[in-house]
Amino acid sequence: MAEQTLRDLLRAFAAEREWEQFHTPANLAKSISIESAELLECFQWSEEGDGERVKEELADVLTYAYFLADRIGSTPESLIREKLKKTAEKYPIELARGKSAKYDQL
Amino acid sequence: MAEQTLRDLLRAFAAEREWEQFHTPANLAKSISIESAELLECFQWSEEGDGERVKEELADVLTYAYFLADRIGSTPESLIREKLKKTAEKYPIELARGKSAKYDQL
Amino acid sequence: MAEQTLRDLLRAFAAEREWEQFHTPANLAKSISIESAELLECFQWSEEGDGERVKEELADVLTYAYFLADRIGSTPESLIREKLKKTAEKYPIELARGKSAKYDQL
Amino acid sequence: MAEQTLRDLLRAFAAEREWEQFHTPANLAKSISIESAELLECFQWSEEGDGERVKEELADVLTYAYFLADRIGSTPESLIREKLKKTAEKYPIELARGKSAKYDQL
Repeated sequence: MAEQTLRDLLRAFAAEREWEQFHTPANLAKSISIESAELLECFQWSEEGDGERVKEELADVLTYAYFLADRIGSTPESLIREKLKKTAEKYPIELARGKSAKYDQL
Repeated sequence: MAEQTLRDLLRAFAAEREWEQFHTPANLAKSISIESAELLECFQWSEEGDGERVKEELADVLTYAYFLADRIGSTPESLIREKLKKTAEKYPIELARGKSAKYDQL
Repeated sequence: MAEQTLRDLLRAFAAEREWEQFHTPANLAKSISIESAELLECFQWSEEGDGERVKEELADVLTYAYFLADRIGSTPESLIREKLKKTAEKYPIELARGKSAKYDQL
Repeated sequence: MAEQTLRDLLRAFAAEREWEQFHTPANLAKSISIESAELLECFQWSEEGDGERVKEELADVLTYAYFLADRIGSTPESLIREKLKKTAEKYPIELARGKSAKYDQL
């Protein structure tokens, strides 16, 4: 139920500002990349990122990702769950344990 | 409750594979950028992305974003809600309506 | 002279394939981001990237960056030189020495 | 010869500021991604980017790419030329003409 409400909050936020016109899938994909890089910037020269800024940049990535999920008629939760099943098959526990290698190199 | 359960699912997925050691904030930030670019690739030469691939790449972005939210002791929902309040202040409805300009150029 | 020749090589490469139509500034900017992320992937879980792959991915970034420089009527060398002057002013040697901080935090 | 001189200029710029310590391949790869996203931001909501800002952001991408090329003992020109040969083989003129499809879908 919480997610339903957040979706409505985001929809209202965009609708009030008449921003749906800008939220094409292509523009949202660009926006996610842009915000991801701002998140990455927290770790540009060091492994330690400033906590408060990390939160804000991650929030921006998530916000656009939620908008895109909604735009393509899905939800973050269902997208993640569906993909996780496929990833679990590509990375069987016995093979993948303790390794960061790609599935085709396990 | 749904989100709680998804968090546990993701935690178990990483724990079974002993992948927590790789999931430092810096590595997760890199991973989010990498997956965002794969999402962007769906729109590299055209405004229309292949629906099925968009879903998968967006799922990858979201999955790493959820891992990072959990790693820094937060949740996607609280991060988004908190940031949305700030964004709403930077983009008052009257000023921002129908415009894609940055807040400092409104 | 070397750069002139490389520019012609790249122009011919695109012209033969009739790819100029795809090389709008916006598409090239997306392509640079996409290839940058493939370069970043070499360092996703480790500080050490595979040398051969790093070369190839960096080459892809550079190729699209050269295409974009040409598309906007400039050259990589003049763009870099011009920007370097500005950066030198923002980061005076005495202030910036040995620090990775942003100029507004020096 | 021009490129040789630019390389020396960049080396001196970093050396004077004692920044070589920050210019590990991994950090430079992150920096290229970060600057690429700032370039992409010029085209976030529109196909038309502001010309002056595009130049500056592209210059930043190129500068870090040049630093990385030098760091791995190569030059932008040789990297591009070498890769272009491989790309030409993957995209034969007859097959690729007028198409933006990936080589494995031609």
